[in-house]
Amino acid sequence: MNTTVLAKAANEARGLAMDAIHACNSGHLGLPLGCAEIGAVLFGEALRYNPDAPKWLNRDRFVLSAGHGSMFLYSWLHLSGYAVSLEEVKNFRQLGSITPGHPEFHETPGVEATTGPLGQGVGNAVGYALSGKRAAAKFNTAEHVVFDHHVVAIMGDGCLQEGVAKEAIAFAGHSGLDNLILIYDSNNVTLDAMAEITQGEDAEEYFHSQCWDAVTIDGHDLAAIAEAVEKAKATQNGRPKVIIAKTVIAKGIPEVAGTSKGHGEGGAKFIEAARAGLGLPKEELFFVSEETKAYFAAKKEESKKAFDAWQATYDAWAAANPELAAELTAGIALSAPTDLSSAIPEFAADYKDATRSAGSTVINAVAKAMPQLLTGSADLFGSTKNYLKDGGDYSTGNPLGRNIWFGIREHGMGAICNGIAYDGIFRVSGATFLAFADYMRGSIRLAALSHIPVTYIFTHDSVGVGEDGPTHQPVETVSSLRVIPNLDVIRPGDAEETAGAFIAAMQRTDGPTALILTRQAIPLQTSVSVAERRDGAQRGGYIARKEKGELTTILMASGSELQYAMDAADQLGDGVRVVSMPCFERFDRQGADYQEEVLPKAVTKRISIEAGITGLWWKYLGTDGKAIGIDRFGLSAPGNVVFKELGITTEAVVNAAK
Amino acid sequence: MNTTVLAKAANEARGLAMDAIHACNSGHLGLPLGCAEIGAVLFGEALRYNPDAPKWLNRDRFVLSAGHGSMFLYSWLHLSGYAVSLEEVKNFRQLGSITPGHPEFHETPGVEATTGPLGQGVGNAVGYALSGKRAAAKFNTAEHVVFDHHVVAIMGDGCLQEGVAKEAIAFAGHSGLDNLILIYDSNNVTLDAMAEITQGEDAEEYFHSQCWDAVTIDGHDLAAIAEAVEKAKATQNGRPKVIIAKTVIAKGIPEVAGTSKGHGEGGAKFIEAARAGLGLPKEELFFVSEETKAYFAAKKEESKKAFDAWQATYDAWAAANPELAAELTAGIALSAPTDLSSAIPEFAADYKDATRSAGSTVINAVAKAMPQLLTGSADLFGSTKNYLKDGGDYSTGNPLGRNIWFGIREHGMGAICNGIAYDGIFRVSGATFLAFADYMRGSIRLAALSHIPVTYIFTHDSVGVGEDGPTHQPVETVSSLRVIPNLDVIRPGDAEETAGAFIAAMQRTDGPTALILTRQAIPLQTSVSVAERRDGAQRGGYIARKEKGELTTILMASGSELQYAMDAADQLGDGVRVVSMPCFERFDRQGADYQEEVLPKAVTKRISIEAGITGLWWKYLGTDGKAIGIDRFGLSAPGNVVFKELGITTEAVVNAAK
Repeated sequence: MNTTVLAKAANEARGLAMDAIHACNSGHLGLPLGCAEIGAVLFGEALRYNPDAPKWLNRDRFVLSAGHGSMFLYSWLHLSGYAVSLEEVKNFRQLGSITPGHPEFHETPGVEATTGPLGQGVGNAVGYALSGKRAAAKFNTAEHVVFDHHVVAIMGDGCLQEGVAKEAIAFAGHSGLDNLILIYDSNNVTLDAMAEITQGEDAEEYFHSQCWDAVTIDGHDLAAIAEAVEKAKATQNGRPKVIIAKTVIAKGIPEVAGTSKGHGEGGAKFIEAARAGLGLPKEELFFVSEETKAYFAAKKEESKKAFDAWQATYDAWAAANPELAAELTAGIALSAPTDLSSAIPEFAADYKDATRSAGSTVINAVAKAMPQLLTGSADLFGSTKNYLKDGGDYSTGNPLGRNIWFGIREHGMGAICNGIAYDGIFRVSGATFLAFADYMRGSIRLAALSHIPVTYIFTHDSVGVGEDGPTHQPVETVSSLRVIPNLDVIRPGDAEETAGAFIAAMQRTDGPTALILTRQAIPLQTSVSVAERRDGAQRGGYIARKEKGELTTILMASGSELQYAMDAADQLGDGVRVVSMPCFERFDRQGADYQEEVLPKAVTKRISIEAGITGLWWKYLGTDGKAIGIDRFGLSAPGNVVFKELGITTEAVVNAAK
Repeated sequence: MNTTVLAKAANEARGLAMDAIHACNSGHLGLPLGCAEIGAVLFGEALRYNPDAPKWLNRDRFVLSAGHGSMFLYSWLHLSGYAVSLEEVKNFRQLGSITPGHPEFHETPGVEATTGPLGQGVGNAVGYALSGKRAAAKFNTAEHVVFDHHVVAIMGDGCLQEGVAKEAIAFAGHSGLDNLILIYDSNNVTLDAMAEITQGEDAEEYFHSQCWDAVTIDGHDLAAIAEAVEKAKATQNGRPKVIIAKTVIAKGIPEVAGTSKGHGEGGAKFIEAARAGLGLPKEELFFVSEETKAYFAAKKEESKKAFDAWQATYDAWAAANPELAAELTAGIALSAPTDLSSAIPEFAADYKDATRSAGSTVINAVAKAMPQLLTGSADLFGSTKNYLKDGGDYSTGNPLGRNIWFGIREHGMGAICNGIAYDGIFRVSGATFLAFADYMRGSIRLAALSHIPVTYIFTHDSVGVGEDGPTHQPVETVSSLRVIPNLDVIRPGDAEETAGAFIAAMQRTDGPTALILTRQAIPLQTSVSVAERRDGAQRGGYIARKEKGELTTILMASGSELQYAMDAADQLGDGVRVVSMPCFERFDRQGADYQEEVLPKAVTKRISIEAGITGLWWKYLGTDGKAIGIDRFGLSAPGNVVFKELGITTEAVVNAAK
C-alpha cells in the first residue's frame, strides 16, 4: 500500500467534498472529511471493484449507511474511475445531476443503496451479506468460485442509535454473517451536539454481546485501517466484524473539526484556509493531483485484470453449469415466468379459507416456479403462513435455506429485504401482521423510492383480526400504504384474486408490492371466472358482477368486503354493477378507456365498502357517492361481532343503495 | 412475605388465565402462566398501589410491555381488588368488556399503558420513569416527599428484539433512570419457535453495555424475585435495573410448557388436567380461594393505610406550597390556559420566515404560560427549533430540565413521550424531521388510540427541504398521518396559523396532534386578521379570502401552498374564494352549517393545492374538482427549483382555474 499517495488522495477527497458543499452551500462535511483515510484505504486498496463494471457479481459491496456524508461516496467514486465525472461532482445536489443530496440506488454507478434515513444502510448491508452467503452456497462449485466477495458498510453514531440498525445487528450476529464488515465512524459527535449528550453505551461490549467481533482503531491511520479490514476479511469465524474507527469529524477544517459544528455545511466558510492547510492549490478548486490520478488509473488496470480473471472463471462455470447459470441470469434479470398463473393450481369451487391461507398455497406454488424466491417472517410464519414447505430454513449452517427467520424485528426485516433486493440475485419477500407494517415503514418507503421489487406479505387485515383488538386491527394501514408513491398495495377479495396478486408482485420489476391478506375465512367468488379474477387483480380494478340492462349503481369493494358488495348486488337487482378494486395503483395505471369502461363517468350513484378508513375512496366515488368504512379504531371482540358492530355488512350496502 | 399463600395465588392466577382464554378460545397463555410467581410477588408484595385509587400519584407504575399476556394483568388486578370484577375476567375479549385482547389505557383501572405492539411498553416505562424523576425533583420539598415511586415493567424476548425497546433502553441507561426496573421474562421461546432460532445475544452483557445493572434469577422462585425487586428499588446508583427472570413459558400445562406451543391459546385444550395439577377444583372455574381473597383483602387494607399516610403528606404539602400544588393539579387536569393566544405575541407584519422558526417563537411563549410543558428532539433541536431557551436540558444531574435530548431514536422518542403522557403530570412534545415520522409511527398510532395529548413537531415538510432530496422530502407523510384515527394533523399556512396550531394542540385533551412545519420561509398572510388565522387553524378550515360578488371558484390549500392560492386568487379576480385547510380532522369535526358556510355544496368548481399526495383532497373537491399536488417522490435540488419543476406554483393554480 502506497501510504504517501493515499494520504494525499485522502486530502484531495476532502477538498472535493469541501468544494462541492461550498458550491451548493448545503450538505455534510463531517463524514467525508472525518473518514477520508478510511475512503483512501477502501477505494485505494481494500475493496474489490471494477469501475467499468459496477455490477460485477463478485465485487465487494460498499454501503454508506451514514448517507448524509454522500460527498464521501461521490468523491471516491470519481477518484476511483467510476462514471461519476468531475462535472457531476461540481453539480452536487443540483437538478438532474447523478450526485443527489443523499445517495440513491439506480441514480449513480457504484451507489449500492439509497441511504440517508439513518440505520437503514446497516440493514441493507446485512441483506447484502445474507445474499452473498447464499449466492456462494448456491452457485459456487467444487471447480469454480463465482462468489467470494465481502460487504463493507460505514455507519456513524446516528446509525448506531437507531433501532433499525440494532435489529439488523442482532440478526447478523445470530446469522453468522462473517462476510460483513461494519466500519463505525466513531467521532463522538452527532448533529446537535457531542454524542456524550445522548450516548453512553460501550460499543465494543455491545457488539460483543450481539455475537460480533469488535476492534477499535485510529480512523486516520492508513496502516491500521488496512490491517483491520484485511484481518476482518480473512477471519471466517462465523461472526460479523465491526471496526470502531475513532475519527475526528470534519478533520481538515480546524475551526469546526471535532465538534458538532463540523457535521453539516457550516465549516464551508473556512475552506480557503482549510484547503491551504491540506496542501490543495488555492487557484484550482475540485483539485485532483496527477499522482492520485495515476495511482487510481493503475488500480483500475489491476481491477480490470482481476475482473477479467473472474470473468473467465464465470464463463467456464456457466459452460459447465448451464442450469445454475440460467437460474442466476433469471434472478439478476428480475424475471418471473410469463405463464406464472399456470403454475398456480385453481382453488376448488368449495374452497373457503383466509386469504393468508390461500397465500400459503400460492407462494408455495410460485416458489416452485421461481427458485430465486426467498421469504421470511418476523417471528410469525405460523400466522402469516408464507413458509416455503420444501424451502429449508436460512441459518449459519444452511445458507441455502429459503425461509428467513427475521425474529421480532420488522424494521430490520424491511432494511434487510431491501439489501437482498439491491443485490438483485434473489427475489425477496417478508411477512408480518399488517398492523406492524408501521414498524417497518421507513424501509418500505425506501424500497419504493429505489424501485426495488420487494414483496411484503401483510396478514391479519382490519377488524377481522377480532379479539386481539384495536392494537392489532389495522383500519388505517392499507390507506397509509396506498399513499406511498410507487408502492403497489393489493388487497385481494378471494383466493383467486390472491393468486393474481402474487403474480402481479412477482412480475413487477420496478417497485415493491404489499399484499394485504385476511386472518378470517372469506368465500370464493365463483360467479366470476378464475382467469377474470386473476387478471382483474393484476389490473387493480375490474367488473366482478356486470349489471343486467341499464347500469344504475356501482358498488365498489376490496378484500374481504367484496363478498358484501356481491351479496348486496344480488339483493338490489338488475342495474347494479360490482367493481372489485384490489389495487388502486394498478387501476390508476390502466388506460383511460379501461377506466371508463369499468367506472363510466355518467354513473354517479356509487357506493364503496372497505373495512378501513374511507378517505382515499372519494376519488372514485365523486360528490354523490357514499363510503362505507371504519373511520375509527376497532374493537376487541370476535371478528364477526366487530364487523357487525361497525356496520360493515351486506345490509349496510343495500341500505346505502336504496 | 407469605410464600405459601402467594404460591397458591400464583396458581389461581394461572387458573384464571386458563379459564378466560379457554372460554373465548383466544389469547396468550404463555406469559400469564410463566410469570405467575412474578405477578404474585409484584401485586402481593413488592408494588405500592391502592386498588381504590388507581391514579394515586405516588403509586408504583406497572407496565406490561408484553401486552399479549393481558390475562396476567387482568388476573392480578382482579385478585388485588381493582375494579376488575370476576365477571369482566369471564368476559375476556368480548364486546364491551374492560378486558380487551391487549391492555388499553383508559379502558381498565390499573392499566397504565396500551401495549401489545412489542417493545412499546419498554419505552412507555422509560417515559414514566423520566416523568417520575422530574416530578420528584419538581414537587418534593425538604419537608414533604410527594413522589418517590418506582416504575416496573415486564418485557419478553419479543420486546427485547424490537428496535424501539433498544432505543429506549439506551436512552434510559444514559439518562440515569435508576427508578426503573425492567423484568425480562426470559423463557427462551418466541411465538414461532424457540428463541435460539432468532436470538443469540448475551442479555446481561448487552444491558451492561447500555449502562444498566443486570441480574439473572429463577423467575419461579418467589424469594429470589422479591429479593431482586427489593434490591433494585433500594439501589439508587444512577443505573436502571434489569432482572433477567428465567421462566418456563406456560408453566402449569405440561403438554406445552417450555415450548413455542405454550405461547398462544393452544394449551387451553389441556387445561382440565392442568387445573388438577395446580390444585384447582374441577367443579369451579375461575376459582379464587378464600386464603387468597383474605391475603389480598389484608394487603388492600395495608395499602389504604399507606395511601392515607401519603394523602396526609400531600395535603400538608399542598397547603404549604399552593403554587406547586396548583401547577401539579393543572398538569394532571391536562389544562391549558383558555387565553393561551394572548400569551403568544403577534408576528410583525413584515415577518417572513419558516414556520419551524415561527414555531420556535410560539413554543417558547407557550412554555412560559404552561410550566408543565416539556419538549424534546431526536438530535435535531438545531433544525426543529423547538428548544425551550430558558428550559434547561433534562439529564441525570438536572431532572428539572425541560428539553429532552432523545438522541437519534425517533421510535424510542415516540414511546417515551407516550409514557410521559400516560403519567399525565407533564405535557410532552417531541420533534424530528417529518420524513422520519415514519420511524415512530407505531408510537403515534398508540397515542391516538390511547387518547393521550402528545404533540409532535414535524419540521422540514415536503419538497421545500430542497437539496437533501427525496429521502428527506416527505411528500406522502402528511396524508399518511391524516389517515390515523384521532390524530389531528395541522399544517399551518403562516406564522399566525402556526400560533393557532400550537394552541389547538395544547388545548386538546383527548388525543395527539402533529404539527407540520416548513424548513423554508413563507410569507405572512396579512390580508387576514391575526385572530382569524389563529382561530381558523383551530377550526381546521376557514375562509382566508372571501370572494367579491358571486362565488364561482373555491381554491383550497394548506401550509406553504396557501401563499400560491392567495396569489392565484388575486390574479383570478372577484368570484374566487380561498379556503385555508390546515387541519382536515378539526374541520371535519365542525358542524355541518360551518362546513357549508366555508365550502358551499353548490359551488363545484374547486381546486386544491398542496405539495404532497393528492388522494385525500377528493372528499372536498368532488367530481368536478382539480387537485394540484405531488403524486411521486421529490427531487434533489434547491427547494424553489423543485417546487417549480413539480408544478407547485401560483401559475398552476391560475391555469387550473381558467
